[in-house]
Amino acid sequence: MLFYYLNLIGIFFFTISGSLAARDKKHYHDYFGVFFTGFLTAIGGGTLRDIILGDYPISWIKDANILLSIIIAFLFTLFFKNYIIRLRRTLFLFDTIGVGIYTILGLQKSLDFHVNPFAAIILGLISAVFGGVIRDTLLNEIPLIFAKEIYATACIAGAVAYSILTYLGVSENLAAPVCMILIIAIRIIAVKYKLALPKFDFGNETKD
Amino acid sequence: MLFYYLNLIGIFFFTISGSLAARDKKHYHDYFGVFFTGFLTAIGGGTLRDIILGDYPISWIKDANILLSIIIAFLFTLFFKNYIIRLRRTLFLFDTIGVGIYTILGLQKSLDFHVNPFAAIILGLISAVFGGVIRDTLLNEIPLIFAKEIYATACIAGAVAYSILTYLGVSENLAAPVCMILIIAIRIIAVKYKLALPKFDFGNETKD
Amino acid sequence: MLFYYLNLIGIFFFTISGSLAARDKKHYHDYFGVFFTGFLTAIGGGTLRDIILGDYPISWIKDANILLSIIIAFLFTLFFKNYIIRLRRTLFLFDTIGVGIYTILGLQKSLDFHVNPFAAIILGLISAVFGGVIRDTLLNEIPLIFAKEIYATACIAGAVAYSILTYLGVSENLAAPVCMILIIAIRIIAVKYKLALPKFDFGNETKD
Repeated sequence: MLFYYLNLIGIFFFTISGSLAARDKKHYHDYFGVFFTGFLTAIGGGTLRDIILGDYPISWIKDANILLSIIIAFLFTLFFKNYIIRLRRTLFLFDTIGVGIYTILGLQKSLDFHVNPFAAIILGLISAVFGGVIRDTLLNEIPLIFAKEIYATACIAGAVAYSILTYLGVSENLAAPVCMILIIAIRIIAVKYKLALPKFDFGNETKD
Repeated sequence: MLFYYLNLIGIFFFTISGSLAARDKKHYHDYFGVFFTGFLTAIGGGTLRDIILGDYPISWIKDANILLSIIIAFLFTLFFKNYIIRLRRTLFLFDTIGVGIYTILGLQKSLDFHVNPFAAIILGLISAVFGGVIRDTLLNEIPLIFAKEIYATACIAGAVAYSILTYLGVSENLAAPVCMILIIAIRIIAVKYKLALPKFDFGNETKD
Repeated sequence: MLFYYLNLIGIFFFTISGSLAARDKKHYHDYFGVFFTGFLTAIGGGTLRDIILGDYPISWIKDANILLSIIIAFLFTLFFKNYIIRLRRTLFLFDTIGVGIYTILGLQKSLDFHVNPFAAIILGLISAVFGGVIRDTLLNEIPLIFAKEIYATACIAGAVAYSILTYLGVSENLAAPVCMILIIAIRIIAVKYKLALPKFDFGNETKD
């Protein structure tokens, strides 16, 4: 039950993050475009995870509450937009909460499907980030995951921590929220202190 | 049978629309690029719908007539291109006919899979527009659905009308063509009179 | 067994090709971005093929050796990058080897699924090129397959040759490597002598 509601909360935050992404584009979107961007951001990662796992029916087809969460989040964005956008880094925060929740939920589901731990961590990451990747790609931008600071690294750290904790016998109901908070905390701290992974240095370009 | 042939007709129009899209790009494509763009435009939406529904085998794998329709449409574009491109708004018209047909076929198939009506309408929309979304994304443009006037709205209006009509007992064989024509008519009228959904106003940008 | 190892070799070359693609981008990627680009390039085409065929579990979920190949190729790129990038056209060569192997493996798998030969050839092509298409799309470039010389044509020629050879009774273990080398050779020759398919001439633009 905990995970069921965490899923709906993740969907809620992803929808707001997706809807707000339209704000930064030169050409404002109409109501449908904003809704659809939010929808794709919210369901993209989970849908890809379910398709790769072959877990049919896909979650948002099976459970109408997911679509309900998206609609509520869209209406929330619609009515409280002036409040939301006045808060600094709102898009970042909402995206981060969604990513934290979805990494662990995706990892957990994959482990339930007896996927090997390394593939399960990648599937957790895909669940968390691919909604955003689809959003950015459709809006014709290089996805955040390729361009910015500690992002995937936070997810992977949280996913590895979850794998270790549950392996050591910690209950899923405890390990899951702890690792979600860990992911969110790492990402916030990384952005606050401008931490980044070292660049992959391909050597002196002039040599090429 | 009606729906089987409507599907092939939709595929035919989508292929032409996809092939013609290459025309607007700076770098003209070779024959293969034009064929492949037409192919992806034609099968993209239906393939995604089938994958999300878990309806295997995917339609174009199962039914060779779909590939035959694509090849005929490609050859048609090849031989009559001078005639086709002289007609104004040809790409728009062919795309609109494909979208009208595919929205209703996708909706109907989803309802046959006992998907809830709201998810079924979204799947109808995805069937209709995702071929074009894939085409635009690969050609490095912001998909039409995010950038332009009444597009998805026409699909949704037609899909809702179909749901209501069949719920009221109207036969599918009557409701389907009527609603396809409704979608096509709404889109043509919207473009002719430059109707658009209101923009999503994110408030005064300077406040942010 | 031959095909199992050829698959791992294809994965290895695709990973290096994907990782090196990051080199040409203005903003260098961090270690994770380079790994993830390599990962998506390596598994993209095969994953899409498996999903379209409905062949679950997806290969890289089932077989941990695929992820191991990716990690080894990533470390190889990491340690030998100075050597790799000094060689001219390395990215091209590694991509071509991957494409040659994957076209035939994808075709063969599709034929084993009793897909009709034309759809099987398209699935072979999709297996081979879609990792690169995903890579290019995410990096915000028009995929090579739409923009450049004889690329898909080489795959199709090799796939048709394989279909004919095996139809004529040539053993798969012989036909497969021969056709892989054929694809690689066609592409290298095409690039060396700047061969290209004729452009699709949409007629005099000013008429439109």
